[in-house]
Amino acid sequence: MSLRYLTAGETHGPQLTAIIEGLPSNLELDFEALNFQLHRRQKGHGRGRRMQIEQDTAQIVGGVRHGKTTGAPVALVVANNDWKHWTSVMNIEPISGNDETKRRVHRPRPGHADLNGGLKYNQTDLRNILERSSARETAARVAVGAVARQLLEKFGIRVAGRVVSIGGIAAPEPNMPIDELIARTEESPVRVTDAETEAKMIALIDQTKADGDSIGGVVECIVAGLPVGLGSHVQWDRKLDGRIAQAVVSINAFKGVEFGIGFEAANRPGSQVHDEILYSEEKGYHRASNRLGGFEGGMTNGMPIVVRGVMKPIPTLYKPLRSVDIDTKEPFTAQVERSDACAVPAASVVMESVVAWEVAKAFLEKFGGDSMEELQANYDNYLRQVAEY
Amino acid sequence: MSLRYLTAGETHGPQLTAIIEGLPSNLELDFEALNFQLHRRQKGHGRGRRMQIEQDTAQIVGGVRHGKTTGAPVALVVANNDWKHWTSVMNIEPISGNDETKRRVHRPRPGHADLNGGLKYNQTDLRNILERSSARETAARVAVGAVARQLLEKFGIRVAGRVVSIGGIAAPEPNMPIDELIARTEESPVRVTDAETEAKMIALIDQTKADGDSIGGVVECIVAGLPVGLGSHVQWDRKLDGRIAQAVVSINAFKGVEFGIGFEAANRPGSQVHDEILYSEEKGYHRASNRLGGFEGGMTNGMPIVVRGVMKPIPTLYKPLRSVDIDTKEPFTAQVERSDACAVPAASVVMESVVAWEVAKAFLEKFGGDSMEELQANYDNYLRQVAEY
Amino acid sequence: MSLRYLTAGETHGPQLTAIIEGLPSNLELDFEALNFQLHRRQKGHGRGRRMQIEQDTAQIVGGVRHGKTTGAPVALVVANNDWKHWTSVMNIEPISGNDETKRRVHRPRPGHADLNGGLKYNQTDLRNILERSSARETAARVAVGAVARQLLEKFGIRVAGRVVSIGGIAAPEPNMPIDELIARTEESPVRVTDAETEAKMIALIDQTKADGDSIGGVVECIVAGLPVGLGSHVQWDRKLDGRIAQAVVSINAFKGVEFGIGFEAANRPGSQVHDEILYSEEKGYHRASNRLGGFEGGMTNGMPIVVRGVMKPIPTLYKPLRSVDIDTKEPFTAQVERSDACAVPAASVVMESVVAWEVAKAFLEKFGGDSMEELQANYDNYLRQVAEY
Amino acid sequence: MSLRYLTAGETHGPQLTAIIEGLPSNLELDFEALNFQLHRRQKGHGRGRRMQIEQDTAQIVGGVRHGKTTGAPVALVVANNDWKHWTSVMNIEPISGNDETKRRVHRPRPGHADLNGGLKYNQTDLRNILERSSARETAARVAVGAVARQLLEKFGIRVAGRVVSIGGIAAPEPNMPIDELIARTEESPVRVTDAETEAKMIALIDQTKADGDSIGGVVECIVAGLPVGLGSHVQWDRKLDGRIAQAVVSINAFKGVEFGIGFEAANRPGSQVHDEILYSEEKGYHRASNRLGGFEGGMTNGMPIVVRGVMKPIPTLYKPLRSVDIDTKEPFTAQVERSDACAVPAASVVMESVVAWEVAKAFLEKFGGDSMEELQANYDNYLRQVAEY
Repeated sequence: MSLRYLTAGETHGPQLTAIIEGLPSNLELDFEALNFQLHRRQKGHGRGRRMQIEQDTAQIVGGVRHGKTTGAPVALVVANNDWKHWTSVMNIEPISGNDETKRRVHRPRPGHADLNGGLKYNQTDLRNILERSSARETAARVAVGAVARQLLEKFGIRVAGRVVSIGGIAAPEPNMPIDELIARTEESPVRVTDAETEAKMIALIDQTKADGDSIGGVVECIVAGLPVGLGSHVQWDRKLDGRIAQAVVSINAFKGVEFGIGFEAANRPGSQVHDEILYSEEKGYHRASNRLGGFEGGMTNGMPIVVRGVMKPIPTLYKPLRSVDIDTKEPFTAQVERSDACAVPAASVVMESVVAWEVAKAFLEKFGGDSMEELQANYDNYLRQVAEY
Repeated sequence: MSLRYLTAGETHGPQLTAIIEGLPSNLELDFEALNFQLHRRQKGHGRGRRMQIEQDTAQIVGGVRHGKTTGAPVALVVANNDWKHWTSVMNIEPISGNDETKRRVHRPRPGHADLNGGLKYNQTDLRNILERSSARETAARVAVGAVARQLLEKFGIRVAGRVVSIGGIAAPEPNMPIDELIARTEESPVRVTDAETEAKMIALIDQTKADGDSIGGVVECIVAGLPVGLGSHVQWDRKLDGRIAQAVVSINAFKGVEFGIGFEAANRPGSQVHDEILYSEEKGYHRASNRLGGFEGGMTNGMPIVVRGVMKPIPTLYKPLRSVDIDTKEPFTAQVERSDACAVPAASVVMESVVAWEVAKAFLEKFGGDSMEELQANYDNYLRQVAEY
Repeated sequence: MSLRYLTAGETHGPQLTAIIEGLPSNLELDFEALNFQLHRRQKGHGRGRRMQIEQDTAQIVGGVRHGKTTGAPVALVVANNDWKHWTSVMNIEPISGNDETKRRVHRPRPGHADLNGGLKYNQTDLRNILERSSARETAARVAVGAVARQLLEKFGIRVAGRVVSIGGIAAPEPNMPIDELIARTEESPVRVTDAETEAKMIALIDQTKADGDSIGGVVECIVAGLPVGLGSHVQWDRKLDGRIAQAVVSINAFKGVEFGIGFEAANRPGSQVHDEILYSEEKGYHRASNRLGGFEGGMTNGMPIVVRGVMKPIPTLYKPLRSVDIDTKEPFTAQVERSDACAVPAASVVMESVVAWEVAKAFLEKFGGDSMEELQANYDNYLRQVAEY
Repeated sequence: MSLRYLTAGETHGPQLTAIIEGLPSNLELDFEALNFQLHRRQKGHGRGRRMQIEQDTAQIVGGVRHGKTTGAPVALVVANNDWKHWTSVMNIEPISGNDETKRRVHRPRPGHADLNGGLKYNQTDLRNILERSSARETAARVAVGAVARQLLEKFGIRVAGRVVSIGGIAAPEPNMPIDELIARTEESPVRVTDAETEAKMIALIDQTKADGDSIGGVVECIVAGLPVGLGSHVQWDRKLDGRIAQAVVSINAFKGVEFGIGFEAANRPGSQVHDEILYSEEKGYHRASNRLGGFEGGMTNGMPIVVRGVMKPIPTLYKPLRSVDIDTKEPFTAQVERSDACAVPAASVVMESVVAWEVAKAFLEKFGGDSMEELQANYDNYLRQVAEY
């Protein structure tokens, strides 16, 4: 049975809750590092007011004692600091009052789950959909991913993220060691390493906001320091690239995912797509290039995982779109619920988190073990086996 | 418990085997239609000799009686017509003889699972990896998907596939009803609707073959006639677009997936990305556009699913790539194992199959029911509920 | 994808947490009824001091708005009212101090998970095991089961529990309608309907406590009002009796489970084991007896589910057992950690809860639907189909 | 992702098919030993004619090459030697003819899945149910379990089974080493070690057959040589005893399961139920008794697993039971379909098989690894850790 997690919670509810199940014991958790990931998710040029309210922190309410996991499920809570303003609207118990008191939503926003969710779950107050479909839920996933990331780091595996493009403005390939990439992107409000691109992106975001519009982009996640052989070719649902694809597309507003050169592979001949195999005493088997993004046959091949996801512009707009009121069936132009002009830098952090989770899960599936000590011994044993192959 | 399947079998083994579990009873199966899907997978300009040998047909060896499913698991066998030449090399029992008799592989091919699979599973005969990682396995998945497709068709849901581009040559948007698209692509050896594009693609494939190289492309799958509300926004792993993404990326040689306008969403402002909501008495809620490819919040929104996948060029090349012999650690240039210059048209069929599977699975999760009659009644009931919303 | 849940939390930690995923929307929750189930778990003759401290209540922190589920995951919290005394010992952050401050446990108790858990998870403070393996966790499962029970009740399905025997004292067969059984057992401190048995059980429990010993028993759960056809014969892991067996044996201290006449079936000829099939216009198909406990082929047959579980005596004893100190490897006689002489009446409530969960899960798998309205319509449709068969 | 399997096939269909997924590579399979398990399932005093026809053997059609697993899914086929007589009745394609030609069943047998299965799957030919619900399916599970057993044996883990009682005649506790138990039970047509009991059981079976009745019994499975720590206490569905309980109850005709002293635990004081912990330099931690059947907290504690299951008498009877014709709704007395008076000895073999599977699954979850070499190294590492604890 693999590592698994569930999240619960609404955007204006009292809290987000997550339970992680299947972690080894004796994983030392760095609480500050965990909250730093939540902080990273809130940063980025182009965010609206909500990000200032939030100042998210995760509280652990199970599974960790005296700084270490015990093997028991880890429960995480991210409280909603604005909850006091929502206790009535979001009350779990029935409230009296009219639509206004309840802040009932009957005007579905295009690009959100409002209408199809309302139809599926038979809700005439679309708030019952949007509260859960909100990207607020990604805070829980970042907390969960932060735990996975810490597990990976114990084995020298590093996870980085960067913005590849925003609104058509593309950053140049960074070409630097992963730790430098992590440090440099952290300093940029748009998570790029190139100053000129940064300036252009900021200007575009500001202009977009002024226009009452929104803008999306492409983000990239790199995972370095991986062993060969995570995932498997033997059955379709064991392929790790497939699982990562699911995780990435399941992020709110993501519409696609690609590995290595990705869609560009459609345009090149095979002789310019594959990564030749080299060998040296020091490095063992290695590659001269990484066009396949670290995967062959759904398994890691020892090269860094390189995966990109595309985020559509946030559908909540000052510049309104046509929609239909579910009460009257009359057309209207869609209202504004919130106001991030661009959430791409934050999306990069979310993507890192879900990728870290899938890699950690595959790691534990491959190496087994119930404590960090046992996991480490199994891991060392495999590295030895690979070195002697 | 959802619909599920497992496949087994090697490319040169006696047979591929698949078990499908969770189908309703009383689904009338059209065996000819099932084998037609296997036939479609073998067609397409650019395939090598193997496709002529195969002439795949699926034999059902469980779960169907007198033309209908019984609710029991359906077992499918696709026999290997060339098995007689492989009984010794692929013998399940030990054979005597040397590497040559065993056709042992010790020279890993870049772009295949040979090397990372060999390291992971501790195999010094890489045949033990490549026999399973071969794209031959997709024949089993096409058979499985053909059953799912027949289920969907009973509810008026149609699945089409087309080639979007090969080696950089892009087909124009077809803009036609889905049944016409199905008919027109079927007549084309490169699964496009435009004669000029077809000619160019064929020429490119021929040239590529002459060059001893290979070429990939982009394929698209469209699913029309869907109800609103398949998949769910409530938990990341219930989102149907995410699941489809996993299924598509898990196809051999696929490196990316996108929905609707996909990666292009990164370049447009939000006001040109989302699909405005309209309403009319006859059509109910509908959209003026389908840029999001039929998904909002991970749920179908009533518009056709439009999903594209990218297939890298087949890594087996006449034009060799550098690699390393695992016995001697000496470099060599990689050998040829087979010779499709372009398998993109076939990949389109495989992609249709895995998408049909995921949609059928989500359909059964939503509507429950153990017989086709019960499923139909539940479906009708939901359509009524949606119409009255 | 089925209904699922995860729990987290330690016996002396801040809280138990549970997330339920996959519920339909518009399920009206009765909070008082939910807490009544938690209250029932704390009752029963023979409980120690802890039960007075606890007074458990469940707080819902996600997935419910204005009294109804929304389809989103439901998060439940059962706070530990004694937490203030444990903030240091159970601190998630490192604390300074010695073994005493940390209340480190190095003396494993026979019959608990202390020693095997310590070895598996490589823990030298066995508190890291016992905090999670404690039966305290069943409070979370009762809360989860209480939600499932409320779902079932909307469809007229009733769940009862009774004590069959304690320490060898057996209650007579109650032979009464299920609602009377529910009412009568509720009034009894040992959950039996017979006054004489009740008196004998109480006396035995008191004597056992006086002796510094503990005592177990057998409990029974009855589920009435079920449709025919929950679970399935088609694959081993779809059989509902098997799933219930897993759920029951997974309750702390349970060592066995049986259905209908259970182990007695080994002693009778077949002619006295099976339930003859009758038919009448009013009742449809029915049975003259229920020796098989409501299951044939792993599916419900329309008769009530009757399942019994056996609970071993609580292993924490005043009358000590020999064990070995993990620090010194010296023998000692096992210490007392708590002091319930008999928890069988409470175990009956836990068993009802886990059985209710499995039945609700199978119910949703069979009938599908995302809202209570859709579920009801599907259910009605099936009942019609069965009636017309 | 854990070890998993699916089976398909009907009792009179062409074959049973099973796919096992998740095995490590380089497991050397002993084909004779595999078929010996199938042979064991067909033996035993009290079986009818069918067992002579069958002479089951398993053919491997995937996942094994030159005597060893490759990591790929293993596909197993058990052919039906009587298939030639059923090609029309069980044809997958529609056949013409009347009910008689089709051997349509419209008279449901009490104690079988005929009626509830027919209602659930909306079948008016109950053959569509009974063909799959037949105990014939256990042949596939024995083949699957035989592979698991071979895996366990590589690690010195031994699986034995014995008949505890038949029709109320109980065998004395064997009290002998597991290998002797395996050898001795193999020689007995009723799988007991005591000659006197054997004679009595045989006489009872013969008498029962003469009476036109059938008889059940209790069987026991012992798994010895286990490491401490398989399964886990941390979440209900990780408890290995719970999983074994599901597997056992899912065997056709099984109505209960118990571990160690099982239901007897309800009658003893706690001081006579738990297993005291001892320690010695040579043995490490061990126990003076094994009343808990090898489990504490859902985890193995190093003592042998002892699990018992109860099998009801086979419901097909010469001595008929009342039932109702589904066409006419008229009562009739149920027909005979086959004629085993007692299948308890065979059930013992099936139970060994499903228990071996669950133990192997838990073993692989704990130790990870993709090849037998890696698994062995991880296992050794853990044993070292336990020894040094």
